[in-house]
Amino acid sequence: METVKIIKIGGNIIDNAAALTQFLDQFSGLEGPKVLVHGGGKLATKLANQMQVKVNKVDGRRITDLATLDIITMIYAGKINKNIIAALQANSCNSIGFTGADGNTITSVKRPVKEIDYGFVGDVVEVNIEVLEILLEQNITPVFCAITHDENGQLLNTNADTIASEIAIGFANKFKTELYYCFEKEGVLQDVHNDDSVIENINTESYQELLNTNVIADGMLPKLNNCFHAINQNVDKVCIGKSEMLFQSQSKHTTIQK
Amino acid sequence: METVKIIKIGGNIIDNAAALTQFLDQFSGLEGPKVLVHGGGKLATKLANQMQVKVNKVDGRRITDLATLDIITMIYAGKINKNIIAALQANSCNSIGFTGADGNTITSVKRPVKEIDYGFVGDVVEVNIEVLEILLEQNITPVFCAITHDENGQLLNTNADTIASEIAIGFANKFKTELYYCFEKEGVLQDVHNDDSVIENINTESYQELLNTNVIADGMLPKLNNCFHAINQNVDKVCIGKSEMLFQSQSKHTTIQK
Repeated sequence: METVKIIKIGGNIIDNAAALTQFLDQFSGLEGPKVLVHGGGKLATKLANQMQVKVNKVDGRRITDLATLDIITMIYAGKINKNIIAALQANSCNSIGFTGADGNTITSVKRPVKEIDYGFVGDVVEVNIEVLEILLEQNITPVFCAITHDENGQLLNTNADTIASEIAIGFANKFKTELYYCFEKEGVLQDVHNDDSVIENINTESYQELLNTNVIADGMLPKLNNCFHAINQNVDKVCIGKSEMLFQSQSKHTTIQK
Repeated sequence: METVKIIKIGGNIIDNAAALTQFLDQFSGLEGPKVLVHGGGKLATKLANQMQVKVNKVDGRRITDLATLDIITMIYAGKINKNIIAALQANSCNSIGFTGADGNTITSVKRPVKEIDYGFVGDVVEVNIEVLEILLEQNITPVFCAITHDENGQLLNTNADTIASEIAIGFANKFKTELYYCFEKEGVLQDVHNDDSVIENINTESYQELLNTNVIADGMLPKLNNCFHAINQNVDKVCIGKSEMLFQSQSKHTTIQK
């Protein structure tokens, strides 16, 4: 099989109908085997408000209680995922929606309670790519939402960036694999206030320097940790930037290197 | 491939957590290729109430407006479908959740407006079993909720009984196929007030007689029409009864014959 592309999109695309349509049009035309991973955007919070389900926070960290897990399952695996599938089919991009429970593709364990009980949040244990491989060979694109399962019947809310990196690592054992994190900026910025200050390459050494000099904004830390986790586990290429980086070879972005 | 069993469950199982668990345990142990189709039960109405979305009816018929379609997508494809998948995985029954959009398995057309505009309701056009066949060969069970798509990006609410019969017909072109409608009674009753009056066999001729003598209750008519549609399109066996008919050979039920 050719190089497998794992592409993660987040709120800046999910929450914007026009941006989502444009992205899915371009994504449909992307050649070669590909897997899409989407976050949840703001729809889950909106539904929680409509249902008057309180957002439960401890020390500023959001807790996934059962009511929240239900909302996440409805919004991520239902509304967002299935509308993406329908839109892709309209572009003749054959696709199937997945949680980690489907095909037993991503197993996880409920995060152990230390200082904080995060509730129904899953830390990934294993990715099984067999069924994904079979589908990709049939030119069918798997589309993942950010839900996994514990193999005991429990669905678990799982970080979408992590799901993307773990799927990429799963493929990297067997295939040439590329991982793309699409977000609202053109890449990691040297100066958070200057969108033109994209750092085009970061490796383990320069990352350490960026950390030491506090250049990396807090929100970027988990994303970059996922990037380095992937590149250190044999993923061939990891990029962060606007989705344009996938479709326009000239588009600026950050490439992560060992 | 062995005989393919298409099994439809409805509200009496979906709405009862203990009944659902028991059914899924038994279903997991069922040998041979199988496809599960589930209805939505009462959860969608409950969520509509919570969200203060009005149930829209014309002449007593429920209308699927956009808000209702969203709720159906969240409940059927999200909450119900994914919790079923997680429960099946816990029983080592590998499974993948489907709408008709996934894998482009069931295409439909928005029901044409005649006296009533039913809204976003789909009448099935085509069933494509290729990807289902591939999954069944891998011992993976497809689990369908009652949603289809129009190939132009629109999800459509579709009757679960119809989805079950159309999937069965799709398989019947190529495989020996059996269709089972599980509901709260042991079968079609001669006397609606007497649960022991199960009619064990109905064929086209005796069905006409039952219709002429008004024995068939209104609610049973669409179900029986689906049954005869299937049996007339080469489905080998069509049964109506409690889910026990699948697991206990002695269990009473109604068998539909040509």
